[in-house]
Amino acid sequence: MIKTDILIIGAGPTGLFTVFEAGLLKLKCHLIDALPQPGGQCSEIYPKKPIYDIPGFPEILAGDLTKNLLEQGKQFEPGFTLGERAETIEKQEDGSFIVTTNKGTKHQAPVVAIAGGLGSFEPRKPSIEGLTDYEDKGVEYIIKDPEIYRNKRVVISGGGDSALDWSIFLSDVASEVTLIHRRNEFRGALDSVEKVRELTLLNKINLITPAEVTGLHGDGKIEAVTVTKDGEETVLETDHFIPLFGLSPKLGPIGNWGLEIEKNAIKVDNSLNYQTNIPGIFAIGDVNTYPEKLKLILCGFHEATLMCQAAYRIINPGKKYVLKYTTVSGIDGFDGSRKEAPKAVVQSIS
Amino acid sequence: MIKTDILIIGAGPTGLFTVFEAGLLKLKCHLIDALPQPGGQCSEIYPKKPIYDIPGFPEILAGDLTKNLLEQGKQFEPGFTLGERAETIEKQEDGSFIVTTNKGTKHQAPVVAIAGGLGSFEPRKPSIEGLTDYEDKGVEYIIKDPEIYRNKRVVISGGGDSALDWSIFLSDVASEVTLIHRRNEFRGALDSVEKVRELTLLNKINLITPAEVTGLHGDGKIEAVTVTKDGEETVLETDHFIPLFGLSPKLGPIGNWGLEIEKNAIKVDNSLNYQTNIPGIFAIGDVNTYPEKLKLILCGFHEATLMCQAAYRIINPGKKYVLKYTTVSGIDGFDGSRKEAPKAVVQSIS
Ligand SMILES: Cc1cc2nc3c(=O)[nH]c(=O)nc-3n(C[C@H](O)[C@H](O)[C@H](O)COP(=O)(O)OP(=O)(O)OC[C@H]3O[C@@H](n4cnc5c(N)ncnc54)[C@H](O)[C@@H]3O)c2cc1C
Ligand SMILES: Cc1cc2nc3c(=O)[nH]c(=O)nc-3n(C[C@H](O)[C@H](O)[C@H](O)COP(=O)(O)OP(=O)(O)OC[C@H]3O[C@@H](n4cnc5c(N)ncnc54)[C@H](O)[C@@H]3O)c2cc1C
Repeated sequence: MIKTDILIIGAGPTGLFTVFEAGLLKLKCHLIDALPQPGGQCSEIYPKKPIYDIPGFPEILAGDLTKNLLEQGKQFEPGFTLGERAETIEKQEDGSFIVTTNKGTKHQAPVVAIAGGLGSFEPRKPSIEGLTDYEDKGVEYIIKDPEIYRNKRVVISGGGDSALDWSIFLSDVASEVTLIHRRNEFRGALDSVEKVRELTLLNKINLITPAEVTGLHGDGKIEAVTVTKDGEETVLETDHFIPLFGLSPKLGPIGNWGLEIEKNAIKVDNSLNYQTNIPGIFAIGDVNTYPEKLKLILCGFHEATLMCQAAYRIINPGKKYVLKYTTVSGIDGFDGSRKEAPKAVVQSIS
Repeated sequence: MIKTDILIIGAGPTGLFTVFEAGLLKLKCHLIDALPQPGGQCSEIYPKKPIYDIPGFPEILAGDLTKNLLEQGKQFEPGFTLGERAETIEKQEDGSFIVTTNKGTKHQAPVVAIAGGLGSFEPRKPSIEGLTDYEDKGVEYIIKDPEIYRNKRVVISGGGDSALDWSIFLSDVASEVTLIHRRNEFRGALDSVEKVRELTLLNKINLITPAEVTGLHGDGKIEAVTVTKDGEETVLETDHFIPLFGLSPKLGPIGNWGLEIEKNAIKVDNSLNYQTNIPGIFAIGDVNTYPEKLKLILCGFHEATLMCQAAYRIINPGKKYVLKYTTVSGIDGFDGSRKEAPKAVVQSIS
């Protein structure tokens, strides 16, 4: 059982900044995310695109914002359960909550902060007969650890950045990479498209377009796929089939936790601290809704900060917290580190 | 008469970010500030100190944050009335407001956003007989344009960063700089203290400590000051006397605008858009109060953003605004500039 002060569901920008604000109040955080990496929409959908409305940054790449937020919170040593979806929540007699993931990992905390954005990212699956039977048996929709493909044969399908980037990356790892797409045109960053073209000419990527994977074969695990091109079927031997058709967010299991839902989001009290209808459970960032809500990153930051004050009072009943400026008081990390502003010196002249 | 869409009182971080958010909604802003430079507390009190809790910046100097915010908003061409205090407000028949400063400058706008922080910064004045009679006649508490001291004799008093830094700066501009402080010890950045020591040895600064200015002389303008040191009085000829004892913020005239005040701050409706009790007037950032309010920079950013939505509806009645992501839609500056994310290319391979 993983125990923490604030259990955060969702490691997008809102969840990541919560770690920092909680840390200032000496509260520890643990984050659960269905994706294998932190950053939420910023890292899953547009890591290489600039955002222009993060205050103080005339321009910042979404991937760099994620990196900075991780760096900002790292001295508060957050825990992570990545690649797992929070499935169920149970209230305990002592008032705390136990949250269990789809893989059975259990987490316990007195405060739960749902920072689930548009929901947990779930892969879009192509409709091929028997596909789900091969999941985790050679069929993967998300690449968590590229090392498992070392010296293996891999078939990737898809026409966007993920399919392009992973084909390029795995061309150096796998023994054979085949990229299959139903059109000749790819939609991705210019340099990725050109790199794939180059690797195809060098025979490091086997490109088949316009074509589709239409059948799966293998006894207990994938051994081959059927590829249909111009109406003709070919069978191609492979160890892995990786359909990369993007991920789409689904509110999913959180929708059944007894929380008030409106417009596919969780209703909160914005006149106080973004409390849901269940005391001890808060919802912050894109996942919540209230009058005048804007689904913007900067709003999640504010919501997270106010929420931490309420979490502090739940965790330290009766104790009063007096706001301190980081500039004035510095920051004490849980790892023993200290950051502080240089003090004005008092010195005699002459 | 200066006319604009949103008249912002206070050019601190909150006011500056409002320019950007308003610009996204195609609304123009004009800012009034009592200080000669933008940045509010960040530039007046701690420009060289790091802030640790601006989201996405593990550390940023308050002065750099100000610079970045100015840069972020500059394509929306904000207007500035600096060095003037907003004194009075009058509601017009057409629903707009006219705000007049202590220097008589008039501004008109349908929406007023008070981002006045802890209030307008007013100088702390030493108690010397007749001091106020010499104001703007050789006595200045804030240095707006250092050029007026070129080849003039200047007496500065004070023992902090301002007194140190301006003595250093003016030692190259004025014909004579005298720095007077009632102790031998100065309280400032290490390098400033050392620089003053050096310039004193070079006779570029005339340092008198422990001493005080106790009298002022001159007919219609300053011509000399009395300096008391060890109980002895000397008269020192000078063209300017600049007491730099710091600025302290006072809510001041805004307190008499008919707004609901609580704990020296303006009450707003945080369940909507930080509206005050007077429709069309909003209060954002440190200047406002509501249940669970935190006086933090990041909260001002959120408040400013939500406030702009309400301003949009007042200025464009009946028009519906649909939130756009800057990453997706880019930014069109009022100066004709355009920022946008590189689009994914669609290209054929082979
Ligand atoms: C193309 C694009 C451009 C954008 N541009 C801008 C912009 O310019 N400015 C701006 O402010 N915003 C922009 N946004 C929106 C911005 O990305 C979101 O506001 C922000 O990501 C919300 O952060 P969050 O942390 O609340 O949620 P998210 O980033 O959505 O993160 C939520 C995380 O929670 C996880 N999760 C959810 N449910 C579960 C569960 N049950 N178990 C485990 N994990 C779960 C998800 O997997 C996800 O990683 C843009 C969005 C897109 C898609
Ligand atoms: C030493 C110190 C350290 C701090 N550290 C941090 C930190 O680490 N993190 C953090 O988030 N915050 C910190 N703060 C607080 C932070 O600076 C404020 O929250 C922030 O400046 C508020 O911004 P604002 O724009 O709302 O108001 P302000 O910065 O106060 O700006 C308000 C402006 O309005 C002007 N004004 C007011 N009334 C009038 C009028 N009638 N006419 C004309 N002009 C007027 C004032 O002159 C001023 O320039 C710190 C503050 C101090 C003093």
